[in-house]
Amino acid sequence: MPEINVAMIGYAFMGKAHSNAWRQAPHFFPGPLQPRMKVICGRHREAAAEAAARLGWEEVETDWRKVIARPDIGIVDIVTPGDSHAEIAIAAAQAGKHVICEKPLANTLPEARSMLAAVKMAGVRHMTLFNYRRVPAMRLARQFLEQGRLGRLFHFRAQYLQDWIVDPEFPRVWRLDKTIAGSGALGDLGAHVVDICHYLTGLRLDKVSALLVTMIPERPLPDQPRRMAPVTVDDAALFLARAGEMTAQFEVSRLAPGRKNCLLLEINGSRGSLRFNLERLNELEFYDRTQPEAVQGWNNILVTDARHPFIPHWWPAGHILGYEHPFVHAVAEFLEAVSSGGEIHPDFADGADCNAVLDAVERSAASGHWENVQPLAAACS
Amino acid sequence: MPEINVAMIGYAFMGKAHSNAWRQAPHFFPGPLQPRMKVICGRHREAAAEAAARLGWEEVETDWRKVIARPDIGIVDIVTPGDSHAEIAIAAAQAGKHVICEKPLANTLPEARSMLAAVKMAGVRHMTLFNYRRVPAMRLARQFLEQGRLGRLFHFRAQYLQDWIVDPEFPRVWRLDKTIAGSGALGDLGAHVVDICHYLTGLRLDKVSALLVTMIPERPLPDQPRRMAPVTVDDAALFLARAGEMTAQFEVSRLAPGRKNCLLLEINGSRGSLRFNLERLNELEFYDRTQPEAVQGWNNILVTDARHPFIPHWWPAGHILGYEHPFVHAVAEFLEAVSSGGEIHPDFADGADCNAVLDAVERSAASGHWENVQPLAAACS
Amino acid sequence: MPEINVAMIGYAFMGKAHSNAWRQAPHFFPGPLQPRMKVICGRHREAAAEAAARLGWEEVETDWRKVIARPDIGIVDIVTPGDSHAEIAIAAAQAGKHVICEKPLANTLPEARSMLAAVKMAGVRHMTLFNYRRVPAMRLARQFLEQGRLGRLFHFRAQYLQDWIVDPEFPRVWRLDKTIAGSGALGDLGAHVVDICHYLTGLRLDKVSALLVTMIPERPLPDQPRRMAPVTVDDAALFLARAGEMTAQFEVSRLAPGRKNCLLLEINGSRGSLRFNLERLNELEFYDRTQPEAVQGWNNILVTDARHPFIPHWWPAGHILGYEHPFVHAVAEFLEAVSSGGEIHPDFADGADCNAVLDAVERSAASGHWENVQPLAAACS
Amino acid sequence: MPEINVAMIGYAFMGKAHSNAWRQAPHFFPGPLQPRMKVICGRHREAAAEAAARLGWEEVETDWRKVIARPDIGIVDIVTPGDSHAEIAIAAAQAGKHVICEKPLANTLPEARSMLAAVKMAGVRHMTLFNYRRVPAMRLARQFLEQGRLGRLFHFRAQYLQDWIVDPEFPRVWRLDKTIAGSGALGDLGAHVVDICHYLTGLRLDKVSALLVTMIPERPLPDQPRRMAPVTVDDAALFLARAGEMTAQFEVSRLAPGRKNCLLLEINGSRGSLRFNLERLNELEFYDRTQPEAVQGWNNILVTDARHPFIPHWWPAGHILGYEHPFVHAVAEFLEAVSSGGEIHPDFADGADCNAVLDAVERSAASGHWENVQPLAAACS
Repeated sequence: MPEINVAMIGYAFMGKAHSNAWRQAPHFFPGPLQPRMKVICGRHREAAAEAAARLGWEEVETDWRKVIARPDIGIVDIVTPGDSHAEIAIAAAQAGKHVICEKPLANTLPEARSMLAAVKMAGVRHMTLFNYRRVPAMRLARQFLEQGRLGRLFHFRAQYLQDWIVDPEFPRVWRLDKTIAGSGALGDLGAHVVDICHYLTGLRLDKVSALLVTMIPERPLPDQPRRMAPVTVDDAALFLARAGEMTAQFEVSRLAPGRKNCLLLEINGSRGSLRFNLERLNELEFYDRTQPEAVQGWNNILVTDARHPFIPHWWPAGHILGYEHPFVHAVAEFLEAVSSGGEIHPDFADGADCNAVLDAVERSAASGHWENVQPLAAACS
Repeated sequence: MPEINVAMIGYAFMGKAHSNAWRQAPHFFPGPLQPRMKVICGRHREAAAEAAARLGWEEVETDWRKVIARPDIGIVDIVTPGDSHAEIAIAAAQAGKHVICEKPLANTLPEARSMLAAVKMAGVRHMTLFNYRRVPAMRLARQFLEQGRLGRLFHFRAQYLQDWIVDPEFPRVWRLDKTIAGSGALGDLGAHVVDICHYLTGLRLDKVSALLVTMIPERPLPDQPRRMAPVTVDDAALFLARAGEMTAQFEVSRLAPGRKNCLLLEINGSRGSLRFNLERLNELEFYDRTQPEAVQGWNNILVTDARHPFIPHWWPAGHILGYEHPFVHAVAEFLEAVSSGGEIHPDFADGADCNAVLDAVERSAASGHWENVQPLAAACS
Repeated sequence: MPEINVAMIGYAFMGKAHSNAWRQAPHFFPGPLQPRMKVICGRHREAAAEAAARLGWEEVETDWRKVIARPDIGIVDIVTPGDSHAEIAIAAAQAGKHVICEKPLANTLPEARSMLAAVKMAGVRHMTLFNYRRVPAMRLARQFLEQGRLGRLFHFRAQYLQDWIVDPEFPRVWRLDKTIAGSGALGDLGAHVVDICHYLTGLRLDKVSALLVTMIPERPLPDQPRRMAPVTVDDAALFLARAGEMTAQFEVSRLAPGRKNCLLLEINGSRGSLRFNLERLNELEFYDRTQPEAVQGWNNILVTDARHPFIPHWWPAGHILGYEHPFVHAVAEFLEAVSSGGEIHPDFADGADCNAVLDAVERSAASGHWENVQPLAAACS
Repeated sequence: MPEINVAMIGYAFMGKAHSNAWRQAPHFFPGPLQPRMKVICGRHREAAAEAAARLGWEEVETDWRKVIARPDIGIVDIVTPGDSHAEIAIAAAQAGKHVICEKPLANTLPEARSMLAAVKMAGVRHMTLFNYRRVPAMRLARQFLEQGRLGRLFHFRAQYLQDWIVDPEFPRVWRLDKTIAGSGALGDLGAHVVDICHYLTGLRLDKVSALLVTMIPERPLPDQPRRMAPVTVDDAALFLARAGEMTAQFEVSRLAPGRKNCLLLEINGSRGSLRFNLERLNELEFYDRTQPEAVQGWNNILVTDARHPFIPHWWPAGHILGYEHPFVHAVAEFLEAVSSGGEIHPDFADGADCNAVLDAVERSAASGHWENVQPLAAACS
């Protein structure tokens, strides 16, 4: 089977999840291309070498430019913080590499547009790794929507809530620093729910009214716990939105005790409704108004049957999947797309669509009124 | 509208629930007969008078025989402990009164049979007040079973769990005294789940293997907390059973912390399954194997729609009912039966069927092997 | 025991719920004043007479002014549509009657202010019947908040979702007519969640950004199904809000299939969180960050124990209450307040506070930017 | 790091799960010994070779005796059907290999005893792979029990329900053939719940009363769908049991529509209760009677925090694990035990304890009365 060499830039939390995906994909989703985990790249050689050993990469580099210059690399997988996504991805595309980039695609809309332009120009495969699109329950939900099972869409609502910074003594890590992270809960959590809204409904949000709040404005520095530093990103973001006539409502926060990684979705349409909870990601709840009234109810589908997306590759019915499995699905389907030259989503255009919404959210939070989402086409034609 | 005078014998917890039913029935289920809460009977005049005022009864008696002798009384409603059910009910029937009797019908099977014989002989209407049959979700479940929605029945299982006597300092109240209560969790909770099994499946349990345990063998006397008295009833009862080929499994206990009044049911058949939890009595879960596989799931039906049993008399959809409502349904339908002369269930035969199972449970717990349930017909023909 | 005569103006859905409360209160909450259901008032004598018989009122009137003029009436209970609340309530207050008024207090903020001024001037007891404040789980939640169990408040969020008008053939009933109902989902459902936010947090919302939508702009007339009439109220209302630093988010809709009467609440604070679902109104979920980490979880409290608010008057633990019980609590506590001359909440000031928020919501939906809630004090001093 | 060569005998469902564990363990649980997936063994070379490639094994054998004879193999991992466990495990032990054996340890109690005797004699490490012991929630539950959080144990109950053979056209696969599988639901599902009872409570079941049923007595042969063959194992097993004073109740079935891989547990003790559902394996519910009454509730602990067992090796809080992760835990801890020479559980003694209960269940089902579980010591001293 033909092989393709993969290079991963970065090695923190997302590096662990992506590495697992590259290791597991060939065993559960044997496909046309065999990925080879060739090189991992991190600024600190020692840490990168430790990560390579632990995560299963053959070689170590400390300069991402060298990695991209290597002719043996076919795929570049970017898992660094958002401030370096654009530079790396554009260089990789220009070098003819296929590119996977963690979400959000970029810290700013102009960067996202440039990245999209670069991959289009280069003709390479590109993917923004919104992993939740490939939770089996989310793909099943998408199928239901495509089949018209929800009818005309009235409402979309999503909350993505965590609680890891409720303690004011929790340090001012890089994710709380705007120069690196771009934004806080908005880009980290809000990006996911905006993308899932676009994915499931097939619509694009077109205007928003938003509120960004930072409840704990300063925190101790990670390595100097006695020195406080300002938190320059949002702790929580709330926004109302429209996508045509559909209303949408979003709330993301890192200050919600008891909500660990809780992405809650609900969609209401004229024929039925859907609900989803990421902390119970193997389940999808479906209310079908077309059933006889006396038996209508919230149908809790355990999405682990052979008829469900991705499942035949894993375990028998009722044997649940975990957080990391959708990354495996993403990598496996990306390899297929590389092999076939076919389309794959979410691509950089999807990523930029998401950035356009985040951009409007930030403008609305500043202006205090509704703001239109800038159409992508304008900049990318 | 014609009136009928009701007399209630007893006035404790069940007296409160039955009184509420008599008061509420005419307002929510106006029917052919108007019940008049004529007389309440209790041994202690003062307490009975207080109950009469609070619960809405016109008169007070202290001797149930006098009540039954009154020609103006049409219905006798018995809510005393089990040891007096037989004597009162038989006398009431012989006096030509229609009789409602709290469950279990009797403390022993022979008593239950005598009661059944008496009401049959007298030609009066009779009801064993297994209130859970008239939870809307239970009647809906029965409809589903009658419609064949579960197919061939494989398994029935039920747990009825409470925790009010977990504390060993909880006193030795009358419910823990065999001479009054007949049995413990078995007659109090087990009777309910046996009856609901008979009701929903339409089958009769025919043999059992059982275990009765008393974990806390003595407790302080209610009025002399320093004196201990033996607990002479079971704290918990577990039994396996058959009804033809169907298996059944029951566990009832008063020693299950966190289970307050938790009756859990599940029925598995070739075409689907049902689940129910009394602490969420407005919900019924239905798994329908005849649906397309990708949408099969546990369908949580909120049984509060106009298409559901009893609901049009109450509130709009989603406005839930509580514990006491099924008593209202029972009383309302009993009044209809009295008026029409029609059948009403659960009657004393249903009550005696339940006693026959409890009797087999006690025999099996003593013998250590499976025991057959004695057919009712033998004694009652 | 002293009696007080009650008159109820109106007799539809809320009339049924209030009547039940007046009937039940003396039996479960015997207090210092015995309410007598003296007179019911409705424009159509025949319908009012039918209601009187069914709901338990002694007399019938067709002109509410006559009712208010009767010297024997002590309490006037208003359950008419919102457009007549102000006129009736003000007249009743001026006649020296104690007044209960269904929520929302009024269709407009100026009306609400006039009503408040009138009851203050008259020195009578007054209550806006936001029934959900007296769901036991809500009062327990309030106790938790008063005890500081949630710490500093970060987020409040609420959805109140129903689905009774999803079908476009559902007729244009009075609740869909602005001249009668004032607004749609906003006043009907939004009023509840705004009030519950005020009640639980003890804060007042001070600014909002809102969206009102009418998805189905015309519907058949109830009595002429072939003639369409415009829907002049909102089908759904979404709004972001602030109460000081706390964020709040609200969504109410009548177009959410599967949500029957589903009021979902969550509050996040620095020490913990609370969740509530009206369709499971006997349960309150509490996450306590002060517990040891390994045992922290969402604690589902079945609010039916003797230690919980209102419960000792009803049934033993685990025997759940239904939709109508909080009305009984409200009426019972109103009678106490009338007897003692003490304060009772939610009063007309609480009702006007809610109207002030609804008013800001409507202004924001029109203007497209954040609007301040007008302080009540300004108008009511 | 020192390496140890592993050989796996068998390659079906369990082979896939075990292989994944061997691949993943070094990445998430780097330990003192590096496992090398040396050889896979299956009777059919082609199928075994395909499995080797897919699952990541270096070499292929078709004769397990040859594998065991290889001096380079340090660990033999047995995932064949139960009828060959004893022969392979005993030979492996005698050859000085450390042995992992899938559950149930053996098809019969005498076999299990011989296996235990063999590993003890050989002085090798041995493990019966009851994977559910290493679900983080189960280890947390064990910790709670060891800490005395449940107090005196009253009741244990477990159901393990599946539905994969509800369709009578489902073929007579090897799992339905007693000569290969030993028993049906009993050995497949019942073994798990018996072991988890032993594990969590630290007690051993000592007597049982049981019922075994085969509802669908014949099925088409897998490769000759027109020919029917008898089902020689149980479709469902129900049994009551005692472990000292504690009662236990078990029901396992493959005929429970909607229950896919649903292992439900509940333990009630004097200080609290625990609940678990394998289809939501990241959650553990704990009711703590020692909390103040007004806040007592079922505490749903999402067992994904850094303070929870195994979790720090995986993902941040709220990022759930799946079915296969406990196998990784088992393999990782087995490697540690091999390296240290320390004890590891569940070992073959635990496996034989389980077989002793299954044996008593079969005897009781045949005799119709309670049967004592044979003490293991008798045979193994």
